[in-house]
Amino acid sequence: VGEGNVRVPAPAEHLRDATESRAVRGSALASVSPGDTEEVAAVVRWCAAQGLAVVRRGGGTGYSAGAVPAGDAIVIATDRLTGAARVTPEAWRGTFPAGMTTAEVHRRCRESGLFFAPNPGSAESCFIGGNVATNAGGPRSFRYGTTRAWVTGLEAVLGDGRIVRVGGSARKNVETLDFVGLLCGSEGTLGVITEVTLRLQPAPEAELPVLAIYADREAGLDALGSAMACGAVPAALEFLDGGALQAARATLPGGLPPGAAFAVLTEVLGTDTVAESEAAMLREALAPGALTVLAPQTRRDVEALWRWRSGVSLAVTAAAGGKLSEDITVPTERLGEALAAIDRIRVDAGVEMTSWGHAGDGNIHATVMADPTDPEALAAAEAVAHRLFTVPAALDGALSGEHGIGRLKLAAAAAQLNPDVLALQRAVKAAFDPFEIMNPRVKIPSVADQVTPTEQLVSR
Amino acid sequence: VGEGNVRVPAPAEHLRDATESRAVRGSALASVSPGDTEEVAAVVRWCAAQGLAVVRRGGGTGYSAGAVPAGDAIVIATDRLTGAARVTPEAWRGTFPAGMTTAEVHRRCRESGLFFAPNPGSAESCFIGGNVATNAGGPRSFRYGTTRAWVTGLEAVLGDGRIVRVGGSARKNVETLDFVGLLCGSEGTLGVITEVTLRLQPAPEAELPVLAIYADREAGLDALGSAMACGAVPAALEFLDGGALQAARATLPGGLPPGAAFAVLTEVLGTDTVAESEAAMLREALAPGALTVLAPQTRRDVEALWRWRSGVSLAVTAAAGGKLSEDITVPTERLGEALAAIDRIRVDAGVEMTSWGHAGDGNIHATVMADPTDPEALAAAEAVAHRLFTVPAALDGALSGEHGIGRLKLAAAAAQLNPDVLALQRAVKAAFDPFEIMNPRVKIPSVADQVTPTEQLVSR
Repeated sequence: VGEGNVRVPAPAEHLRDATESRAVRGSALASVSPGDTEEVAAVVRWCAAQGLAVVRRGGGTGYSAGAVPAGDAIVIATDRLTGAARVTPEAWRGTFPAGMTTAEVHRRCRESGLFFAPNPGSAESCFIGGNVATNAGGPRSFRYGTTRAWVTGLEAVLGDGRIVRVGGSARKNVETLDFVGLLCGSEGTLGVITEVTLRLQPAPEAELPVLAIYADREAGLDALGSAMACGAVPAALEFLDGGALQAARATLPGGLPPGAAFAVLTEVLGTDTVAESEAAMLREALAPGALTVLAPQTRRDVEALWRWRSGVSLAVTAAAGGKLSEDITVPTERLGEALAAIDRIRVDAGVEMTSWGHAGDGNIHATVMADPTDPEALAAAEAVAHRLFTVPAALDGALSGEHGIGRLKLAAAAAQLNPDVLALQRAVKAAFDPFEIMNPRVKIPSVADQVTPTEQLVSR
Repeated sequence: VGEGNVRVPAPAEHLRDATESRAVRGSALASVSPGDTEEVAAVVRWCAAQGLAVVRRGGGTGYSAGAVPAGDAIVIATDRLTGAARVTPEAWRGTFPAGMTTAEVHRRCRESGLFFAPNPGSAESCFIGGNVATNAGGPRSFRYGTTRAWVTGLEAVLGDGRIVRVGGSARKNVETLDFVGLLCGSEGTLGVITEVTLRLQPAPEAELPVLAIYADREAGLDALGSAMACGAVPAALEFLDGGALQAARATLPGGLPPGAAFAVLTEVLGTDTVAESEAAMLREALAPGALTVLAPQTRRDVEALWRWRSGVSLAVTAAAGGKLSEDITVPTERLGEALAAIDRIRVDAGVEMTSWGHAGDGNIHATVMADPTDPEALAAAEAVAHRLFTVPAALDGALSGEHGIGRLKLAAAAAQLNPDVLALQRAVKAAFDPFEIMNPRVKIPSVADQVTPTEQLVSR
């Protein structure tokens, strides 16, 4: 791969991801940045021969430590997989190298009049390969589904160094089992994704958000119900609680009204006519009981509002010095029950918490504030984060809607998930990763994890 | 399962599917209709103990003989899996038993103001379980994706009789590998799907089709390009060639203009405002060069047009007495090349052919006419059908976009697909089906099939 592309020891920035805010750090023997798929395959074969674990990383924006290495691992960084992108505007399609940032994919699509819907908050720094590896979501998954819904083909290096292409450029393809879907969200446990082919749509002319702010949660939940019943299909249907609003109040366009305790943020996309028509329906649905309704129209105002929304997570981190953010998911109609259950955990533990997330998808970023330099506070917060996993278990939800299981939820997955399903996962992994080197102890609990669920082993 | 629900010998209607039009018939020891999931599991366990193959069948509308039994198999018919359906309107969700027809699912959704997008032509007789098992498409997959995009959870009986639930009611879920997607389109080779949970959308107020007819293919292909470039995102973007138009001319509302050789059919869905706005964009895009443009507005006229479209396949069958219909898929921009390649095969073989399909998805129902009572004509047609598989191979397409591999394309899959991918399929199947009883010789070629690709073994 070239001497300059092997780093021993691995640089500090390749041992961490967004879980840095909860003081998670990894360890590795070295970090390698292959320049193309063949080089990825050669590195994987070498690791297989040495019996060394391979931890692939993208932009390092994960919240589950799925790309944080542990023990004597080799990090395969995909930052040099930035070869040619190919957009085919007339067929609404693009093929992109795994190491391209999601924001750059968005820009390339726009240049051709096209649109890739998934927009995780970290788009400027995450990689499209990582988005596929985690089946990333984001606000627009409410209408458009998660990343998986838009991937028609991909290239990956399996655990024995074989390069496979699954799916392709055709928008429909049932000639094999759905290996495209299986690799989406596999979190580096089945292979290293090196290139992805996406189906796209025409770029919408207009992107119109509507933000409504309420004095209490009940009014906000009622408004969410009205939004879902109004007949429009918004791209996004988000919520933020009072704590998140307070933490991010400095940058909210127009400022935060006194008494703000809950916000609903929605967005419609389409031609000018379509977007204006649906935005009007949503303004009407959200107005009853609102302290204020903000419906920016100009490009500048719209962008300012979304910049604010994207900054919520950082603002919350800044307010407390650090945080532990989970992304449990419940059936949409049980959002209120889930928030009430989180309240009880918060009060019982006596910690500071805030929640926001993708209301329409029932996906809650339940967040415990903690100063990461205070071990006692951090331990208390980790205990609360662990208790949060009782919420989806009680409400027919899931441990993770978009962040993945990673390392941090491995114990919860081992404890909660159906043993038959866990066994199927191990068998499928064995087919893709016969030497058991691809991201071990991430996503897929081992038999040992199931017998004695242990906390994750990331060094701190 | 109750004596009346075991039929020995299996009734004739459980030995066939839509490939009856090409004289395909199967064989089985018996057919069993379990009444619930536990009964399905008991039957599968019994079959595993006896070493008997299990062939699950839904509505029997398949075009690849994936549910046509062969040899000493036991058919598990899912026609009695019609237990309670549960629709949760406020969360845009429904859970349906596998044996419910797709049309009934559509009706249940409508009653709650909701909408399940996939609409295969056979909706009145196919089962939702079969739609999931084949990852069925249909016209509206262009905008909305195939069935898989809407399934959030399912229950299935694996090959050793274990009942598993994967996914659930949450709209986003990455807590395991994507087993929901893996079972979608697995064609009964991994398990028997017994119940499915679907995410839904609000029912559109308006469904507006636009049909434009052209005097030659080139004008039609140009119009398809204009439709894709006009900024609208129609639900469907279909084409029909002259032969299909002629076969179905009797029922076309308004009649067929003289010289008709190609048609483009598109449809927009949404609120009245949205649908009218996008329908206008598409009328404008399709008008240049058209012999006629039909844009029905009333519910009655709209339904008449779609009834006509749904009847095309039957009309083609009726015209020749029988047909062999494939569903190869190519990248959308290569539709014209694919149709030209099919022309060459047709002329070379001296057979009668017609094509129609899902233009926006590059999915071509290339169809060879043949009288199924004439063995010589049928053999010639089968040879042509086999040659059709060279078209996706040359154009970066796929053997099947929505019908599946079934039995009929097993040899083509064995010959064309990457051996590494075929090996992965067998390994994954072994995890779900340890006794190798679930729909053997369907979808997943064996090592023997790969070494010596043979024609399919369905008795005729």
